[in-house]
Amino acid sequence: MTTATDLSLITPTVEEGRALAIKLARSTVKATQPDAEVRVRLRPVYAEDPVALVAIAHVVAVEFATIAAANHYWR
Amino acid sequence: MTTATDLSLITPTVEEGRALAIKLARSTVKATQPDAEVRVRLRPVYAEDPVALVAIAHVVAVEFATIAAANHYWR
Amino acid sequence: MTTATDLSLITPTVEEGRALAIKLARSTVKATQPDAEVRVRLRPVYAEDPVALVAIAHVVAVEFATIAAANHYWR
Amino acid sequence: MTTATDLSLITPTVEEGRALAIKLARSTVKATQPDAEVRVRLRPVYAEDPVALVAIAHVVAVEFATIAAANHYWR
Amino acid sequence: MTTATDLSLITPTVEEGRALAIKLARSTVKATQPDAEVRVRLRPVYAEDPVALVAIAHVVAVEFATIAAANHYWR
Amino acid sequence: MTTATDLSLITPTVEEGRALAIKLARSTVKATQPDAEVRVRLRPVYAEDPVALVAIAHVVAVEFATIAAANHYWR
Repeated sequence: MTTATDLSLITPTVEEGRALAIKLARSTVKATQPDAEVRVRLRPVYAEDPVALVAIAHVVAVEFATIAAANHYWR
Repeated sequence: MTTATDLSLITPTVEEGRALAIKLARSTVKATQPDAEVRVRLRPVYAEDPVALVAIAHVVAVEFATIAAANHYWR
Repeated sequence: MTTATDLSLITPTVEEGRALAIKLARSTVKATQPDAEVRVRLRPVYAEDPVALVAIAHVVAVEFATIAAANHYWR
Repeated sequence: MTTATDLSLITPTVEEGRALAIKLARSTVKATQPDAEVRVRLRPVYAEDPVALVAIAHVVAVEFATIAAANHYWR
Repeated sequence: MTTATDLSLITPTVEEGRALAIKLARSTVKATQPDAEVRVRLRPVYAEDPVALVAIAHVVAVEFATIAAANHYWR
Repeated sequence: MTTATDLSLITPTVEEGRALAIKLARSTVKATQPDAEVRVRLRPVYAEDPVALVAIAHVVAVEFATIAAANHYWR
């Protein structure tokens, strides 16, 4: 499903944890819509629609919660 | 409800955990709409609708949170 | 609210945990709309609407997270 | 906000935990829309709208997760 | 962002935990829409829209989950 | 993805935890829509739309749950 090799939830920093959360969310969209051309066509729709932008931020927040727990919150 | 035998939340890798999260989300859709023909007809609707794509990514993120906890985050 | 007797979150298998999650989600709909005829009339609306199908999958994922934790993830 | 006295998250059974989850969700609606007449007028809208029914089930699932944890899942 | 001084997640009772959850949810709306006049104008829209009422109940449920955990569920 | 240096989930107070939750939610919107002009144009849409305001409050609640856990709820 994802082409990442050696995918790990452990990241050295909070920033990299945020980046991983976005990457995980995108990988699900990729798995549901594998056609890159369609995804490229849909991208401006997301990026200009306030509701979609907030919905994406919501998914990233959920993925980040998992990653943060995995990293003991980088305490 | 699912036809999987010996379904387990434990996976050797993060990638397989992601794949399981997608599988679990799909199994609920299957249980709610058991008619495969209808599901096939609806598939392009999901795959071309930005809101639906993000909503699916949200469900997968929630299922993944459970699977990740089950696997002690593959630490 | 539910008519189940001796309802328990503990299930022997993951599959039964998934089935319980669907049952719990349905029991809330039943409590909010107790008229069985109305529920039967609404059923095809859910089952043919991609957004509703994903929304149901989302609720089931949340219920399942609770059930999985209750069962120590069937580890 | 709620008129309950001695509100507790601890319930003897899972069924009572479910009932409490519905009660908590309703108490928020009451706090946001304190006019009972308006709530009564809106009730059929919820109860006949598939999307609203699923949305209510979602809120109840989240409240129940908290109550279930409070009760150590009635293990 | 909030003007509360000495904000704490610890509350003596479940009821006060519910009230705090509503207060936290409102403080985010305030931070996003700081103009009190606009908020007052929007209030009846929320309070008469079933979807908005359920959406608010959802946010409060999520805030309450955090507060309940902070208070060890007032066990 | 975010330009913050030394981003940490640990905050001295609950208020700063709330502020961080809003900042994290905004950083995802920024990552999805990097064009500041577009974001400025969309801002009034969010701030006047009740559904969007509640949706933002939802994302902040999820981010805050993570931050609160990281800080042992500032107990």
